[in-house]
Amino acid sequence: MAKRIGFIGLGTMGKPMARNLLKAGFELTVCGHVNLVPVEELRHEGATVVDCPREVAQRSEVVITCLPDTAVVQEVVFGPDGVMEGATEGCIVIDMSTISPTATREIASRLAERGIEMLDAPISGGETGAIAGTLTIMVGGKESVFEACWSTLEAMGKSIVYVGGHGSAQIIKLCNQVAVTLGQIAAFEAFTLGAKAGLKPEVIQRVLSKTTARSWVIQDKMPRTVLAGNFESGFKLRLMCKDLGLALELAKEMDLPLFALALAYNLYILVKSQGKGELENSVVSTLYQEAAGIDLSKM
Amino acid sequence: MAKRIGFIGLGTMGKPMARNLLKAGFELTVCGHVNLVPVEELRHEGATVVDCPREVAQRSEVVITCLPDTAVVQEVVFGPDGVMEGATEGCIVIDMSTISPTATREIASRLAERGIEMLDAPISGGETGAIAGTLTIMVGGKESVFEACWSTLEAMGKSIVYVGGHGSAQIIKLCNQVAVTLGQIAAFEAFTLGAKAGLKPEVIQRVLSKTTARSWVIQDKMPRTVLAGNFESGFKLRLMCKDLGLALELAKEMDLPLFALALAYNLYILVKSQGKGELENSVVSTLYQEAAGIDLSKM
Repeated sequence: MAKRIGFIGLGTMGKPMARNLLKAGFELTVCGHVNLVPVEELRHEGATVVDCPREVAQRSEVVITCLPDTAVVQEVVFGPDGVMEGATEGCIVIDMSTISPTATREIASRLAERGIEMLDAPISGGETGAIAGTLTIMVGGKESVFEACWSTLEAMGKSIVYVGGHGSAQIIKLCNQVAVTLGQIAAFEAFTLGAKAGLKPEVIQRVLSKTTARSWVIQDKMPRTVLAGNFESGFKLRLMCKDLGLALELAKEMDLPLFALALAYNLYILVKSQGKGELENSVVSTLYQEAAGIDLSKM
Repeated sequence: MAKRIGFIGLGTMGKPMARNLLKAGFELTVCGHVNLVPVEELRHEGATVVDCPREVAQRSEVVITCLPDTAVVQEVVFGPDGVMEGATEGCIVIDMSTISPTATREIASRLAERGIEMLDAPISGGETGAIAGTLTIMVGGKESVFEACWSTLEAMGKSIVYVGGHGSAQIIKLCNQVAVTLGQIAAFEAFTLGAKAGLKPEVIQRVLSKTTARSWVIQDKMPRTVLAGNFESGFKLRLMCKDLGLALELAKEMDLPLFALALAYNLYILVKSQGKGELENSVVSTLYQEAAGIDLSKM
């Protein structure tokens, strides 16, 4: 079992995940990249701080990346002073970012030429799940590598699902984003229609939570976001736009007509263009509420 | 409590609902309309058969209608030999059809002028629920009238929800149809994307049943319809097209832009135009499967 872990990408998700590795007793190495504050925090908690991804890789059996997009992952792995320059044969890279499945397969293939294994391991569960160590982690890559990394993943997540070969976890993550987004639009349109026609949002929520329309979005998310008028914390609209863009890109590579996804993507970037990209993604409901002249949190 | 019930509309749903009223000990009156077979069946089980809705109303304290669309309900209630000609003051009409909420309010208002009360009480739960007496019944109208009809409704349904004034149950029914339809499209697009990209549909179903994408459609309906390649029994595409048309009409009356509903309606009538209107409405998934060149039930 690997004891020496490197962690690159100490953002909203990455920092608490890295902290949970420290708590679980792993020897952690991190490097300053964009923001030095989380690096200093983790140094005080016992992490070793180095200068670049190359040095992180030199000191680690497993290197975890948790980064904003495909281009940044490629740069951190293959760029100057990147992971590939420091990693030795037998090292494992676990990419926990949400990035292109096609790019993931290419990265895995280039790393394999140097004897470096890779897992794609995108996450869901948000900042709360990252802090509590209860993330859902979807994993793609060789099953033997997945098994070798079990204790590392277990320190960060609760529901850990092996999906299949390289890129397959990125694919299922995109399927999830497509389904949850379209399920959310289902809720927005049903609630707007009913409330504008005179029903109380609370009544709509109560009834649709019991019928064949029921979903996590209607039962769990709507009451604490749209119906509470609260878009402050949670998965940002800007990041969901990125994920939906990746899903559309994948659909385009395969010549698939995904009508509702294309529509949803356009609605989401429209609301992002209104300066709402940093809010929780259910802020897209304001487009419907404003057009209807209603406020679902005050009816 | 009313003991004499009239039932008009002995179709797929109406016949088993009428039978459950007989079993519960109500005195039932029915009339031959389009199809005489169910009328004869119910006669053998103890129902009284008369010639027209007027005669049904003359013999009944409560008249239930369960009919295909707004125009038929209007004809049966207000047309020649219709319910209004036979109903006396204090009679209650319970319309269990799914029809226009606006037309429902007009019907209730015209009946009220003659001292006849009305409830709108659309149902969900399908033929299985109608047979088992486990329907969900949403009820709109005066609360006192709803209470007076409790034992009648209880003979046909399990979950009986009072929603609000006249038309409100029709509104919530349309909200349900919008939410379940868009939730279904969410599943179709997520499954098509993932399966075309190489994942097994069974893996997609298993993972998305646990994440924030989870819904009744993904957890319960997909395995026995799309993933089984079975579109034989259940709520017909033709009828869902009708309900989505009603929802769009309501949105139009209120000047609401419901982007995804408009898209869904067009996809649904497209597949209906391919001669699939009599199949279960998840047959719309074949549009995606054919475009992707995959069969989700054989992967």
